[in-house]
Amino acid sequence: MVMSKKVLVTGGAGYIGSHCVVEILNAGYEVVIIDNLSNSDAECVRRVEEISGKKVPFFIEDLLNKEALDDIFKKHKFNGVLHFAGLKAVGESVQIPLRYYHNNLTGTLHLLECMKKHGVHNLVFSSSATVYGDPQFLPITESHPAGGCTNPYGKTKYFIEEMLKDLCYAEKEFNIVSLRYFNPVGAHKSGKIGEDPKDIPNNLLPYITQVAVGKRPHLNVFGKDYDTPDGTGVRDYIHVVDLAMGHVAALKKVEEKCGWKVYNLGTGRGYSVLEMVKAVEKASGKEIPYKFTDRRAGDIASCYADPSLAAKELNWKATRAQNEMCEDSWRWQANNPNGYRKTDN
Amino acid sequence: MVMSKKVLVTGGAGYIGSHCVVEILNAGYEVVIIDNLSNSDAECVRRVEEISGKKVPFFIEDLLNKEALDDIFKKHKFNGVLHFAGLKAVGESVQIPLRYYHNNLTGTLHLLECMKKHGVHNLVFSSSATVYGDPQFLPITESHPAGGCTNPYGKTKYFIEEMLKDLCYAEKEFNIVSLRYFNPVGAHKSGKIGEDPKDIPNNLLPYITQVAVGKRPHLNVFGKDYDTPDGTGVRDYIHVVDLAMGHVAALKKVEEKCGWKVYNLGTGRGYSVLEMVKAVEKASGKEIPYKFTDRRAGDIASCYADPSLAAKELNWKATRAQNEMCEDSWRWQANNPNGYRKTDN
Repeated sequence: MVMSKKVLVTGGAGYIGSHCVVEILNAGYEVVIIDNLSNSDAECVRRVEEISGKKVPFFIEDLLNKEALDDIFKKHKFNGVLHFAGLKAVGESVQIPLRYYHNNLTGTLHLLECMKKHGVHNLVFSSSATVYGDPQFLPITESHPAGGCTNPYGKTKYFIEEMLKDLCYAEKEFNIVSLRYFNPVGAHKSGKIGEDPKDIPNNLLPYITQVAVGKRPHLNVFGKDYDTPDGTGVRDYIHVVDLAMGHVAALKKVEEKCGWKVYNLGTGRGYSVLEMVKAVEKASGKEIPYKFTDRRAGDIASCYADPSLAAKELNWKATRAQNEMCEDSWRWQANNPNGYRKTDN
Repeated sequence: MVMSKKVLVTGGAGYIGSHCVVEILNAGYEVVIIDNLSNSDAECVRRVEEISGKKVPFFIEDLLNKEALDDIFKKHKFNGVLHFAGLKAVGESVQIPLRYYHNNLTGTLHLLECMKKHGVHNLVFSSSATVYGDPQFLPITESHPAGGCTNPYGKTKYFIEEMLKDLCYAEKEFNIVSLRYFNPVGAHKSGKIGEDPKDIPNNLLPYITQVAVGKRPHLNVFGKDYDTPDGTGVRDYIHVVDLAMGHVAALKKVEEKCGWKVYNLGTGRGYSVLEMVKAVEKASGKEIPYKFTDRRAGDIASCYADPSLAAKELNWKATRAQNEMCEDSWRWQANNPNGYRKTDN
């Protein structure tokens, strides 16, 4: 009898975590979730079970609670860990840096110590293209200098990558892949799970779809005079299910004992804010009113990935096009105008 | 009646911490020490009390024990904190990075959260010129790029500086000075406290004086073909009592509500390994046998400070010359061949 492999997913009730859980279950793994629900909803895990038809053990716990984490590692024998848990709002991180540093860094250190103690050496880390800071060249390859980010959120991603690299250097049994996401959008085809910001969305797509569904009067477009074809910022949007498939590929990579590896997860193709607005209008059949406002401090004109290393070494490529990203985002938003909550809040 | 100000000194039983405690007491402050004795000795605190003629409350505790730290802040009302506690061996940090990251980063985060909770907003942080990485120009000013260090020890210093800077930006009541030390040497004039490596010394001066006192047969000089006058590495050695005076000046600076500041503590003058050997030979009257061996990975030819910013803004300058550094190092070593321990170990 072949036992299926079991992985721990931290932050598995979040936007990216939950989509990854679905694809990891599809790939035949068992999954255990730990999530403190600080920015997510238990209903999401219920829906993941509904989509997958599988039970997913779920611990509502914080990585800062080392003893609770240790108990989970005692109860379950894991083959690997996918680490999504972390605070992620750039603006908030500038306001309350101590909380971001403590939560993201110490949480990760507790996880790593627990893994080491229990002999679990395979990890996929949820990093971000934010570690590159302002691009010095485009498209961005993995050899682009890292560490230039100026906000505490981005710094936590970079600091954690440095810790993971040093750990792999010191302890050769560790295999860690850090995935640097560009701009995840879209939702599961079922329309049952998706991005569910608890407050005003920080990201473009949830904001646009909330305007489309009538929850917000108009979109603010920050800057119209960037050095881009239509003057609005260009980003490398990637469908969250493509991103999830990238995690399945990364999980196989760590199982091959790869040591320390870093991969961009992006499409290699950028779209402007206005191109995304038009695409959601088409997908939803709704008009999206927008207003131009000043540039935001720290925003850059263009950012997109060179995803060829992941293609070569992970045998992974994003396949879902812009229309699919917008249709799936819209389906989730239209079916769940208040996200996982039953009523508006 | 004027109440004297009270400061908490973390790592106050260590080499630099203990010399700072003496000078802070001399400046009229009350001092409370917290130290986990992981790389220091309670005897050091007893001798600090002997030198100063003052009682110093001393908690043997770890900054990772947040509750114990909170209790100390409840018992004592502090005007400020000097934060020396941290693991500091470069080579060891490469071997056991998790321990270094957890101890240094999480320990500091606990301290900062405790300070915030108890309304203590003045901090002097024990940083290092290692944050500059390989010098891009000499002498090194505070505007030299930071973050280029490649070992976990150095990264913890850099990461902590970034956290402190972000904290000062977010919470304007915090005043934090980070002091970037060059190469501290020497000892208190009394010969009662000094650098006391528990194992083979990582730093040059204790190694030389241990050879002089007959504990080690010879000094290994790593590399003789560097681009320096005599081919051996050049460093900016600074007397630890000068360094301690710099902390008194920094403490006054944070009391002036300075926000976030960074200062080099160095002399601005470099000496080669062989120049230091000669100076200790002169100070001790002993011959110091040495052998040339290969360069060590990561070592650089020359490193010395531009200390003019500290002169201007802290009104501080190093005044103790090379001969005094070596005489004081030698006095400590000769009086205490086994450091704070009664017998060799």
